[in-house]
This record gives sequence, C-alpha cells and structure tokens, in this order.
Amino acid sequence: MAVGILTGGGDCPGLNAVIRALVKTLQQKLPEEKIIGFLDGFRGAIENRSVPLTTKDVVGLLPKGGTILGTSNRDNPFKFPISVNGTLEFHDVSDTVIENLHKNNIEVLFVIGGDGSLSIAHELSQKGVKVIGIPKTIDNDLDATDFTFGFDSAVRTATKALDMLHTTAESHHRIMVLEVMGRYAGWIALYSGLAGGADVILIPEIPFNWDAVCRKIQQRKAEGKHFSIVVVAEGAYPEGGERVIARYVKESTDPARLGGIGQVVADHLSRCTGLESRVTVLGHLQRGGGPTPFDRILATRFGVAAVNTWLQGNYNVMVAFLGGRVTTVPLSEGIKKLKLVPVDSELIVTAKAIGISFGDE
Amino acid sequence: MAVGILTGGGDCPGLNAVIRALVKTLQQKLPEEKIIGFLDGFRGAIENRSVPLTTKDVVGLLPKGGTILGTSNRDNPFKFPISVNGTLEFHDVSDTVIENLHKNNIEVLFVIGGDGSLSIAHELSQKGVKVIGIPKTIDNDLDATDFTFGFDSAVRTATKALDMLHTTAESHHRIMVLEVMGRYAGWIALYSGLAGGADVILIPEIPFNWDAVCRKIQQRKAEGKHFSIVVVAEGAYPEGGERVIARYVKESTDPARLGGIGQVVADHLSRCTGLESRVTVLGHLQRGGGPTPFDRILATRFGVAAVNTWLQGNYNVMVAFLGGRVTTVPLSEGIKKLKLVPVDSELIVTAKAIGISFGDE
Amino acid sequence: MAVGILTGGGDCPGLNAVIRALVKTLQQKLPEEKIIGFLDGFRGAIENRSVPLTTKDVVGLLPKGGTILGTSNRDNPFKFPISVNGTLEFHDVSDTVIENLHKNNIEVLFVIGGDGSLSIAHELSQKGVKVIGIPKTIDNDLDATDFTFGFDSAVRTATKALDMLHTTAESHHRIMVLEVMGRYAGWIALYSGLAGGADVILIPEIPFNWDAVCRKIQQRKAEGKHFSIVVVAEGAYPEGGERVIARYVKESTDPARLGGIGQVVADHLSRCTGLESRVTVLGHLQRGGGPTPFDRILATRFGVAAVNTWLQGNYNVMVAFLGGRVTTVPLSEGIKKLKLVPVDSELIVTAKAIGISFGDE
Amino acid sequence: MAVGILTGGGDCPGLNAVIRALVKTLQQKLPEEKIIGFLDGFRGAIENRSVPLTTKDVVGLLPKGGTILGTSNRDNPFKFPISVNGTLEFHDVSDTVIENLHKNNIEVLFVIGGDGSLSIAHELSQKGVKVIGIPKTIDNDLDATDFTFGFDSAVRTATKALDMLHTTAESHHRIMVLEVMGRYAGWIALYSGLAGGADVILIPEIPFNWDAVCRKIQQRKAEGKHFSIVVVAEGAYPEGGERVIARYVKESTDPARLGGIGQVVADHLSRCTGLESRVTVLGHLQRGGGPTPFDRILATRFGVAAVNTWLQGNYNVMVAFLGGRVTTVPLSEGIKKLKLVPVDSELIVTAKAIGISFGDE
Repeated sequence: MAVGILTGGGDCPGLNAVIRALVKTLQQKLPEEKIIGFLDGFRGAIENRSVPLTTKDVVGLLPKGGTILGTSNRDNPFKFPISVNGTLEFHDVSDTVIENLHKNNIEVLFVIGGDGSLSIAHELSQKGVKVIGIPKTIDNDLDATDFTFGFDSAVRTATKALDMLHTTAESHHRIMVLEVMGRYAGWIALYSGLAGGADVILIPEIPFNWDAVCRKIQQRKAEGKHFSIVVVAEGAYPEGGERVIARYVKESTDPARLGGIGQVVADHLSRCTGLESRVTVLGHLQRGGGPTPFDRILATRFGVAAVNTWLQGNYNVMVAFLGGRVTTVPLSEGIKKLKLVPVDSELIVTAKAIGISFGDE
Repeated sequence: MAVGILTGGGDCPGLNAVIRALVKTLQQKLPEEKIIGFLDGFRGAIENRSVPLTTKDVVGLLPKGGTILGTSNRDNPFKFPISVNGTLEFHDVSDTVIENLHKNNIEVLFVIGGDGSLSIAHELSQKGVKVIGIPKTIDNDLDATDFTFGFDSAVRTATKALDMLHTTAESHHRIMVLEVMGRYAGWIALYSGLAGGADVILIPEIPFNWDAVCRKIQQRKAEGKHFSIVVVAEGAYPEGGERVIARYVKESTDPARLGGIGQVVADHLSRCTGLESRVTVLGHLQRGGGPTPFDRILATRFGVAAVNTWLQGNYNVMVAFLGGRVTTVPLSEGIKKLKLVPVDSELIVTAKAIGISFGDE
Repeated sequence: MAVGILTGGGDCPGLNAVIRALVKTLQQKLPEEKIIGFLDGFRGAIENRSVPLTTKDVVGLLPKGGTILGTSNRDNPFKFPISVNGTLEFHDVSDTVIENLHKNNIEVLFVIGGDGSLSIAHELSQKGVKVIGIPKTIDNDLDATDFTFGFDSAVRTATKALDMLHTTAESHHRIMVLEVMGRYAGWIALYSGLAGGADVILIPEIPFNWDAVCRKIQQRKAEGKHFSIVVVAEGAYPEGGERVIARYVKESTDPARLGGIGQVVADHLSRCTGLESRVTVLGHLQRGGGPTPFDRILATRFGVAAVNTWLQGNYNVMVAFLGGRVTTVPLSEGIKKLKLVPVDSELIVTAKAIGISFGDE
Repeated sequence: MAVGILTGGGDCPGLNAVIRALVKTLQQKLPEEKIIGFLDGFRGAIENRSVPLTTKDVVGLLPKGGTILGTSNRDNPFKFPISVNGTLEFHDVSDTVIENLHKNNIEVLFVIGGDGSLSIAHELSQKGVKVIGIPKTIDNDLDATDFTFGFDSAVRTATKALDMLHTTAESHHRIMVLEVMGRYAGWIALYSGLAGGADVILIPEIPFNWDAVCRKIQQRKAEGKHFSIVVVAEGAYPEGGERVIARYVKESTDPARLGGIGQVVADHLSRCTGLESRVTVLGHLQRGGGPTPFDRILATRFGVAAVNTWLQGNYNVMVAFLGGRVTTVPLSEGIKKLKLVPVDSELIVTAKAIGISFGDE
C-alpha cells in the first residue's frame, strides 16, 4: 500500500519541512509503505503525475523555502478549467483523481494547503477518500488553528523591510508606506507593524478614516517627527470606500499588481500633510526565503502529528495548533470560517497604548 | 510622583523593547508622571544613579539588542558585595534602595529581569515596595510563563549557527558539535536542534548514555551519512556523570569558558566512531543581536500590560504569557520553580519520530 | 575655525559611516577644531541649520543605514526652488551658502553625495569655497571611482531578494521578474543577477530584443526548466523602444512608481511563453538596511582619506577608490561622466559563458 | 575525453559556485566533453572515487556553502598517510593519481584549493599532468591574488558577530573579545575589526605590547566608555612571546580548540583594567553559511576564466584577481609566498586614524 502527499495553493516557507517530517516519520514507523508525492498540487493527482519519496529525497529540505513537489493555484478537480473549442469550461474531474489514487494504491492522502486545498480535500472525503489536512497560510487567517507555518516567516520578511525603510524615512523626512499581504485579514500588517515600529497600521478589519490617518501624521510632524512609517494590508480600505483589492480577485492572483491601496494611501497622505511619501509593495518576497525556526518546528510538528493521527485510525481531520499544542479538528470544522483580527483584541489594545493609529479615531 | 524602571541579570534581546513600551504607554496615559530609569540593574538603585526617560529617549529602541539602562549580574541588595579591609563581605543594603526610591518619589518599580532579579523584587515587595515584574530569560526556564522574550532570538541565533555548520559537516564528513546555553533546562538546544536539523540533542533533563549516542552516529555512517550534527546544552551530562557546568556556578558566570561538555562530547564521539569532530561554543552570541519580531511583540505586550495592571491597582505581580495571552501572576508564584523540558512532551516525541536521538535509548 | 559636513542626494548605506570616520579622524588630529553638520543636505547650508558634532554623536553609527544629518533631493543652491506668488521659481542662492559658511567659520566643507551634490560642490569651489568631495551612489555609476559605498549593500539586498524569489519560481513554475535600480547604468542588475542566479539580465547599456528574451525562456522550458528568473534595471528598454523610466525623470523621483519596465517585461514574457509571471519592484529597500562590511570599510577609508588630503593642503578634490587603493581626483574630473557597463567587459563575458541572456543574441 | 574537478583543503563559501561555473561553461563550450568530479579532494583521485557532473547536478549550487564533491585536509598524494602494521607511514602515491587520471581520460584537472592543494597541483604538473589552479582561502593570505572567494563571507560572519557582541558589551560594561581565524595573516581580524567597530585589533603581523593594549582600554574607561571590543586573530601573540596557536599546528587542525590567544587576552585585560571580560571563539562558523554576492561573483568569474584559459591552450597556471581583473599567473608563482598585512598599509593607517589600537604604540 501507499500514502500520497500533495502541496496546494500559494507557496509558503515550511511546505518542504512538512514533506520532510511526513517522509521521515512514515519511513521510521512503516518502513514498507510506499510514499508518493503528486506534482503541482491537485493537478498532479488529476494527471497522475507523481514521484516516489524516500528519506534520501528530503535531505536538506528543512531550511529550504517553497515545495519540491510543486504547487498550483488553479487546480480544483471539482471545477477544473478545460479549454473546449477555445472557451474555458469548468469540469468535475474528481472521479479521475479517485481513480488515480486507486491506481497508486493510496490509503490516505496528506493534503498540505490553505483554505482552497483543504476544501477540496473535504469534498474528496465526502466521496470516500481518506484525507488528512495540514493547514498552510501566509495570512494566518484559518480560524481552526491559532497559527500556521509560513506566517512567522512572512512577518519576519515584512519586519525586516520596515527596519530597512526606517533609515530612508528618517534621512529624507518622508512617509514610507509598506503594502503587505492580507486581503481579508490584517495579521501580517498587525504583527509586522508592531514589530517594525509602524506609526499607522491599516487593516481590512478596521475601515479607516482619512482624516484620522492624516491627523496622526500631522501630529507627529507637530512633535518634530518629520517621518512616519505606515503599514497597509492589501485589503485595507477607507470607510465608505471599497477594497481596491477587489479587482485582483476578478482579474489577477497577483498581489504585486499596480495601483494597490498602498499607492493610494501614499498619494493621499502626501497631499494632506505636505510631506513626501514613497510606497513599497512587498509582494512575493513575503512567500520567499527559508522558514524561521518557529515555522520549521511547527511544520515538523504538523507533519509528525498528521502521520500519528492517521496511525491512530483517524481521517478526514486537519492538524491544528491550539493553545500551544498540536491537535486535530474535523476537516469540515477547519475550513468553516476565516479568522479575522478582533478589533478589540489585546494586540490592538497594545498597539494603541504605544500610540499606533489604525485610522479609526 | 514618578515610576522607576530597571533591567537586571544577563542581557537579552528585547529589554530595550520593554523599556520603550513602558515609556510610551506611561507618557500616553500619565503624561505628568516622571519616569526614572535606574542604571546597571539594582546597583543603580543602591547607588542612586538614574536617568530620566521620555519618549525621545526610546526612539529607535525596538530593534536594538541589549539595554540602554545597563545591567549587572552581581547586585543583590540583600547580599551586596562590599570590600571590607580587602575581604568581600555581603551586606543587606535593601534599606538604601528603599530610601532611594523615596527620594525619587517612586510609586512603583518595574523590574525587568530573570529569576534572580524577580526574587529580589519579591523580597523588596515584602518590605513594602510596590513592584511589577517583567520576566526575561534567554533560557525560557521560568515556569510561570510559557515564553519570555529573548528565547526566540536565541533560538534564531543557534539555528543559524547550525545551518552554517551543516555545510562544513557535509563537505568534510565530520561530526559538528554545537554547545548552546541551558544549565538546567534544554529549551534552546531542543528548539534549535529541531529547527536546525540536528541528529542528536543532549539536554540536562535527559542524562545521556554514551553508547546510545555513539550508536546513533555509527548507524548514520552505516546508512552512508558520514556527517552528523550534535547540539549540546551546556548543562547536559552523561548518566552517572555530573554536570561539567557545575564548576561554572562556583567559579565563573561565563558560558564560553573552556572545556565545557561540548568539547567532551566531540572528543568522545570522535574516538568511538573514528570520524573527525569539531566543537563550536556559541557563547555570548546567543544574547546578542536585535530581537526577532516575536520577541519585539512579546516585549511590547509585556511592557503595555505591566503599566495597565498597575493602573488597575495591582502590584507585586508579574506579567506572563500563558496560553497565547498576556496575563499576570503573583510575584511569589512567578519565581517558585524552573520550567524544565518534560521528557515525554510532544516536542520530544516529535523529535524522536523524525529520528533525532537524545542519547536515552 | 571649523569644518563643515553635509550629506546630499538619495540616502544610501554608509553615509553614517563616513560621518563617523570624518569626526573621529578630525577630533584625533585637530582636537580644537569645531565640526559642524549641516542638516538636510545643501538645504541646511542655505537655511543655516546645523548641529555641532563630536565623537559622542557618532557612537554606534557604523552599522546604521541612512544619515543622521538628513538629506534632500531638491536643494541645489544654484537653482533653489522658491515659491513666488504661487509659482515655483528657481533662484541662485549660492551666496547665502557662502555667507553661512563664513558665519560658521568653515575652513573646508566635506560634501558626501552623488553626481548632483558633487557638481554643486564643484560650482561652489569655483566661487572660492574649499570643498572635499566624498562620492556616494547606490548605482555605482560614477566614472571617477571603481566603487562607491552603498553599491555592495544594494547588491546584497537585490541578491537576497532573488534568493527569495527562487523558491516561488520553482514551486509555481513561474517567471519571476525583479526590477532593480539603475536608470542609465545596469551595475546593480548585473551584479545581483550574477550573484542571484538570474537567467536573463536586462540593462540600459544593452537595449534588448523581445524575441531573444522570449527564446531564452522557451529554451529553458524545452530543457524541462519551467521557471526563470529575470532581473531588469529600471532604465532597461527594448531595441527601438524608449525608456519607460523616462517619465520618472520628469514627473517623479520615485523608482517604485507604477508601470515600470519590470511589469512590461513580465506581461510580455507571459504572453510569449504561456508561463505565469510575477513582478517585484524592489524600490527603496535597495537604499535601506545597514551597510555591508565592504561598504563600512570603504566609507571609513573615504572619511579618513578626505581629512588627510585636506590636512596635506589639497582641496577641490574628491576621494576615489581606484585599483584597490583610495586616492584623490580633481572634483572637476570626478563628475565628468557616468560609468556605464562596458558591453564587452569581463563580467558580461562571464555571464554569457554560464548561459545568462542579455536579450541581445 | 574528459576534464576532472576536485576541491581540496578546508571548506569555504564559494566552492560550489566555482563547480557550477566550471560545469556550466564547459557544457556550453564543449557539450561532448565528459566532466568528472573526484570526491573528497585528492583522496578521490588516489582512490579513483568520482561522480559524473552535468548542469543538472549544479542546479541551486550558487548560494550553497561547502562543496558537493567533499574535501579532505590530509590527502597529499606525495605524502599520503598509510597505516603499515599499526604505524603511520607516508608514501608517494602520485603515480596512482596519474594512473587514475589516465583511466578517466582526463585532459586537464581543475584543482580548487588553497596553498596546500595548489602545491600538490604544481608537483603533479612537474610530472606531466595538465592542471589549472583556482585559489581558495578564507584567510586571504595567498600573495598571487588580491582576493579569494570565501574571505568576504568570513568577514561578513565575523562582522555580524561583532555587531551582536556590541549590545552585550554596552549593557554589561564588559570587554568582549572575539577570536577569529588567521594563523599567519590578520586579514579577517583587520577587515572585521574595521567593519565591526573594534577598539583593538591584534594580528600576527604586529606582535602586541600588553601595556599598550591595557592602556587603550583604560583610556576608554577614563573617557566614560566602560566597554571595549577586541578582535584577535588566532595567530596573534605578544612581543617577546610565542604564538599560542603554535601547538595547533602540531596537535590539531581545529581553531576552536581550547585555550587560544582570545582567552589569554580576555584574562589579561580583565586583570589589568578591573573590567569584566568575555571571549567568543568564532571557529567553524567562519567557514559556514552561503557565500556573499561578492564571493559568488568572484567564484563564478574564476570558474569561467579557468575554462577559458585552458581553451586558449594554457595550463599549469592559476587564475587570480589582480587590480580588479581576473587574470592568470603561473602555478609556481601562485604558491610562492604568503600575503601578510603590510604594517604600514592604508588599512592600518585608516584604522589608527579613527583610534583603533594594534597594541604597538
């Protein structure tokens, strides 16, 4: 018999560390079991493209970003895009996936992915496939787990960027705006803003008031601080306005696209304060680089726990990190809702106590 | 009236971030209150050496390691070393501290420190001084809090070192031994070993068996892996042996001292496996560098929470991070015991599942 | 008597290291001399805003990016923008500068800056001011010196970004485009492309052929390499086309502005190869962060040499790094021409030998 | 026909980058030529252990430290240690090497190594083997080349360590001593000391005077600077004394061995100044980590130039970096002498101008 592994959705530091932990644990506990890695997310399961995996294949993977199995953003087997006479139609090819799993004698499929991939995994489980989910999201917006790997690495990268922008801000007396990921949830903006010494943090959970933001910068100017650091989540938007990001969802999957909210904020603040402003869109750098120690460890814990829960006879569950412990929750629970930043959470209160503005007062 | 702040014990990334958070929060909530920073730990409180602190003084402190207030390892006012006719005597000068606090109109003293400094704070509270403790330890061995700032930064440094040693290990087919901090608790060794891909982790909580460790290295050699990475906590020791570290406690406070357990392990493994070995003692680098984003945020949360708890009328408490939340515990509770690595904890189980040896089987 | 120091133009890692070296050397050699730092570039000299500098003020400056003196991009005293009845007029206020130098008893003015600031310094020297120039440019495009500080740091940041984009490129089989600084000279693109493993490097010195670039990516695809890394200098442009950057020169000084050549290249390559592409505009991050060891040392050497050459009775010269040695050249020589990448230089030959395409064959 | 590649001596960041450049250039220029990598330095040539190399094998090597071919410190084929009846005898097995080169149809052997490996290469060339040398040394002490790859990376690591030690030094008012590599030449100490803001730099080229060093620290104390940073090359020694390092040459190849000069200096300075001191021995971390951009580029230039010079009909030469250009020198010249720090060089003068003491005045 065999187990299958695939990685789906946007890439993220720690995917390789999970693969390594799965393979190492499986080979130690079930040395006879074959391990098959499907390539490029569910696309490999649809097209039956895969590679065998042994411990030799995972040497050196722990500190390496990305995923050796490849991934894909557009590979939902329940709505698979197929070009028919020049028009794109969406077909349900989930039976092909199931067939390919049978062909490969797959007992259980470990799906490492975000919201989208875990939903597909859940749908497959409804059709009888045994799956174990391993949650992954840069944005940290899965409600069923306190943290996912990748988030700490993204926060590190964004914080590093803020540290770097500080010197230019001070030297030129400028407003430096950093646009970070977060369409619906502002976790990266909040954490990196706190860690990187931001003066203003704008997140989707708190529609901001233009006057309040300008006032904050002007107040700093009045105190003799002629520079300011602003962190903006890509999904942030002004009160009464709408998300600039909205068009990405339709047209593009690219957060580095032009004309995002970061630029809008920089232009507005420049006008209302008379200070020069500059915007930096961090974009894909947030997904890059090796995982931090925290993410390496969390990814490893998730990988080991996923194997152990399966060996204990569980399936159609997702591993999760809750209250400092790795545990499991039903897959159906795991994907039910987004975890937004609570507007009255201790982190927001902390940020406000040291003078950070969220543009809401 | 005024509040006092001091930092005590070994330096640690995040101390400055706490000072910044305290000052920013106090000046926002109590703009009239004077803030006084005592210099060099309790020594400054004994000698009445201090500086006033305003928000101007904390600009740029967030990413900066160390402490602008200075610190000291040998400044217990209840056992203060005074040279009398050439011999060192230990005097109780706590009344001088109390007098100096009065002179400065100190309402409350914020003590940022580890086990030792918090114990002194507690003793002072018994004599009527209002204190709020803010826990700090690189080693993460305070039982009353899940994490302290500084630990994540130390793990980062140790993990980075392991990443760097990997290439030499592979290129030369050597056993590379890294000795890290941890006299009684192996947290740094455990976390960095997991994150840095160690093959063997030796911690004080699990006295190791020489044969088991040699066997692990030889087994790797038999599998064609001619190099190994070993992380050793400075307080690790073999079954039936005693802590090499023991002499530090008597003679020295310097973890970089010669002839530590790292060298002993390297020599022994070289003899029993026939492979070359090299030891690196990480020493003070673990205390250095700026804090990680996690530590910057935790330090900031601690600083804000410390002010808030005092404003709510509490004192003689310590802020703590429990179950993902910042809360407070009585100072007396906070210093009661060390937090050791539980030998059957999920982290140990995880490490063993991926083949890491602790020298115990 | 006194010496003056100012930093002009875009900020750059190493400015503070020069200030530190100037101050330390001056105070050691001429302890009685006053040192005056003009604020915000020539603007401070025009408005007579300055601070005294002593060795105390330069503690900790070596690793710190930016400039403690501030800088400005629009402060040419020979063409100073003054708002007259709502319209901007450009006035020659150089006499005011000279007057302010007299007021401050300035014997010599150390000008740390790029092309623009050094030209102003030269013009001032024509009016009798004694100046010593210290060249600075991220872009490394000053012909009179082999290297300037800031360049190595910018290359480090761009190389780090390429390392980070590699994992996403591989995991998603994408073309990742990184747009870096360089309006007229492609040094940052060339160095970071070589160091970061780029497949294509596009620089202003070599107008590129769209077909050649597409062919390179397609050839990689044919060899089974479904990802590519492309580095584009902001001033690169296709044969027969014109610089997209051109409009920046008119409208903006902001390299992170929208719609740069990076996006154009990404869109084109996506169309011609059928592969997904993503662009990252590195922007101001290239100016941020602390200087590398090389830049810290070069900045220090420049600072010391600037003082020494003045003490030897020279002025109206610029320090330069030529053939591994720090020397001086006349200011008039120093600003005569830009240093472009020679299209047949050993670096280009090296890059082509390992298969990097410049889109020209 | 085939070409051979081997890496010898201590590992060093950039070895893999050279291998990559050699393979990429060879496969582009001579697609039919076989490329053979001997394993573990000359040992692999003696024992005829090798692997074929193609461009697939060098994917991802550029940023990776160490060498995929392995290396060895004790593999001189002219003095190869062989155990005969329990005693170690040294045999000349160079004919075996030549035989193995013939067996593999090796036309030319690219030897990437330091002083030792290049001397062996030269001896082989005397026996008719065609060799091209590519110089490598962390210590930068080869006279025939201005720089070798690996040095800039080692300086980065040592400078980073100094940055990290600064915060502890300041917080605790301590003397922090960092011992770095350099048995005969103090380049790493000099560069990292300049870049890391050291107060004292001790190098083998300038035997130091204890009184002068103590005086420097005391003078700082008198100026209110209660901390000092001291960088010591492992081969530094006091006037009239002898190198503590001397015993390593006999007993050990391990620079992290106990009781080095760093500890001696720390103890002495503590006694003569009354300040606490701590020593950190950087050891193998200096060889670890990925190469810096400079080293990646220099290694690539060396690899390409080595192939090109051979294709032009040259052999028994070594590539070198002189005056900013990559060129070649005869192998016999390349190994003739060590490059020591000239005691009156501009770098020493620069260091002294900003107040750094070398313990000689």
